[in-house]
Amino acid sequence: MAAEPHGQIFPAKRLEAFGAGALAALGLPEEDAALCAARMIDADLRGVDTHGIFRLPHYSQRIRLGGINLHPKVHAVRENAVTALVDGDNGMGHVVMNYATKLAIRKAAESGLAWVGTCNGNHAGAGAVYSSMPLAHDMVGMYMTVANANHMAPWGGIELILGTNPISVAIPAGEEPSVVLDIATTVTSYGKVKLAAQKGESIPVGWMIDKKGQPLTDPKRSSEGFLVPIGDYKGYGLNVVIGMLAGVLNGAAFGRNVVDFNRDPAAVNNSGHMIMAMRVDNFQPVETFKGEMDRVIREIRASKRMEGIDRIWLPGEMEHYRIRERLERGIPLAEAVVVQLRKLAAELNLTDRLE
Amino acid sequence: MAAEPHGQIFPAKRLEAFGAGALAALGLPEEDAALCAARMIDADLRGVDTHGIFRLPHYSQRIRLGGINLHPKVHAVRENAVTALVDGDNGMGHVVMNYATKLAIRKAAESGLAWVGTCNGNHAGAGAVYSSMPLAHDMVGMYMTVANANHMAPWGGIELILGTNPISVAIPAGEEPSVVLDIATTVTSYGKVKLAAQKGESIPVGWMIDKKGQPLTDPKRSSEGFLVPIGDYKGYGLNVVIGMLAGVLNGAAFGRNVVDFNRDPAAVNNSGHMIMAMRVDNFQPVETFKGEMDRVIREIRASKRMEGIDRIWLPGEMEHYRIRERLERGIPLAEAVVVQLRKLAAELNLTDRLE
Repeated sequence: MAAEPHGQIFPAKRLEAFGAGALAALGLPEEDAALCAARMIDADLRGVDTHGIFRLPHYSQRIRLGGINLHPKVHAVRENAVTALVDGDNGMGHVVMNYATKLAIRKAAESGLAWVGTCNGNHAGAGAVYSSMPLAHDMVGMYMTVANANHMAPWGGIELILGTNPISVAIPAGEEPSVVLDIATTVTSYGKVKLAAQKGESIPVGWMIDKKGQPLTDPKRSSEGFLVPIGDYKGYGLNVVIGMLAGVLNGAAFGRNVVDFNRDPAAVNNSGHMIMAMRVDNFQPVETFKGEMDRVIREIRASKRMEGIDRIWLPGEMEHYRIRERLERGIPLAEAVVVQLRKLAAELNLTDRLE
Repeated sequence: MAAEPHGQIFPAKRLEAFGAGALAALGLPEEDAALCAARMIDADLRGVDTHGIFRLPHYSQRIRLGGINLHPKVHAVRENAVTALVDGDNGMGHVVMNYATKLAIRKAAESGLAWVGTCNGNHAGAGAVYSSMPLAHDMVGMYMTVANANHMAPWGGIELILGTNPISVAIPAGEEPSVVLDIATTVTSYGKVKLAAQKGESIPVGWMIDKKGQPLTDPKRSSEGFLVPIGDYKGYGLNVVIGMLAGVLNGAAFGRNVVDFNRDPAAVNNSGHMIMAMRVDNFQPVETFKGEMDRVIREIRASKRMEGIDRIWLPGEMEHYRIRERLERGIPLAEAVVVQLRKLAAELNLTDRLE
């Protein structure tokens, strides 16, 4: 969801403090509250507005209904030098994934490569936030997760038993921004469909199909259809494979046992994620690799463009500039989001009411 | 390319022996010739007809023009317990990838997880052939490569500097067939476009666009356009990331330095690949995991279908049944392929002329 007109702009640090304050007031230990808020603001800075502070009211609802363990014992239940299965003990997803990602980085620093899966987690925000953490260590990062609601059917099917299961891959570069891919395996998100419905707009052919496989372009009819995977059966296959690697492999939910966290905010999700970290110097000296990354990035960017196209973007490059801009100018929030956050602030009797 | 009408059917073992005989006659050591032929027939058995024995005449041309090192010293130039960079020394791609995959499996058996990259390789056939090799060891396999010709432009661009860069992921199951995804990151392959042109058919909207971004549906005009990535900018991003992980990370070709092996069969390709192998028992006892895989596979297959859809397929399931069928009934080859293979057999003075 792009920032709505008539929204407001807040400094990143203020929103982060606000989020941390709210989560602490809800009972999270201060350290975890600060960590969750930081990971949310990471998403907002990148421009993934649907996965940042926008989610705070929903997370708060889950916490208040007892859907989140505020004092989880996040720990590895299986572990060797290069892999681990981390049980998130139904803690906040950000806390679990932060733990898992740091563990993967530590193992990869030692051994060159690590893959850490998580079970009993929750929604953790934007994938790029975690896939990007290994970058500072001259590592490649890869993240996959099972989405927390099913808005897609198997290819040829009509039952909503699959989610938007995303993948994010981050690769360090030299002078150029790191390459950071972060994509759902559906053409669009259900959030964008709901937004079009709110605005009374139609949605493009290719976003959704109905139960006869025909394009569905009226978003008010969205409950009669499902999201379309990228590349049709190819995206369906990628979606399933991601679900198996992030869900089934970790003993986490995938398929029918995914809990729609919008419909049932109190239920345990058993949300599954995976993070991989790998040192680039397994393969090339770091500087050689980064120099080559810069070369191919520049080659792609400088290649001839279609008429009317101002710039060719690399994956994550727009986000790189948005982070810079938002750190400087602040994070724009839609009015509806501001209203919800103020309501939450009043309920929790916070000092900062975002007024 | 599906088998053409008026083609012929050959037992898999006969085609494999034919391929091995041809490659040995071309100067490959017998062991390598047999190995290459086996990997090609693996692709034919799966139904990936464009990546099997169909390629033999082209491989032969490269060998005769000196484009392949017949006696490569395939070896790891960088190595630790869980990663390796294998220099293929410009050997046959199948020889290089077979070596790399076995090395990854050996390391993963020991340590739980391994990632092996290759440089100085060549076209190695179908990705699923390699991603599937870890399955027998109760391991997940993942394979990526940089395609050997550029038929795609960056998103918003018009220069052919990207290929169909595929990804393949294989995950073991129990009683059900293993899940094996093998997809290019373009909606279709250039081979299918060429086939439509030969048949005088038009191609669907969504396969190619022209330099103005408009759909290109006349395959005879294919040189005026480029393949479309799956999910538009999403597939473009996935394509680039695969190119960086399989190419740049290994010091292999990606972007402008990819040699079109159709146009220049004698040139060194420096083709890059990667293979990952990971034991499932890092995360779950093998039988528990396989049981859960069976459960979700059956759940997806048994979910409600669209009208007119006979069956919901899991990734790789069609190929599973095709392998069984072709082992029993033989491999169908298009007449044009048979003609080319017979010509090759005559040139090499082989005993079996496929008559």
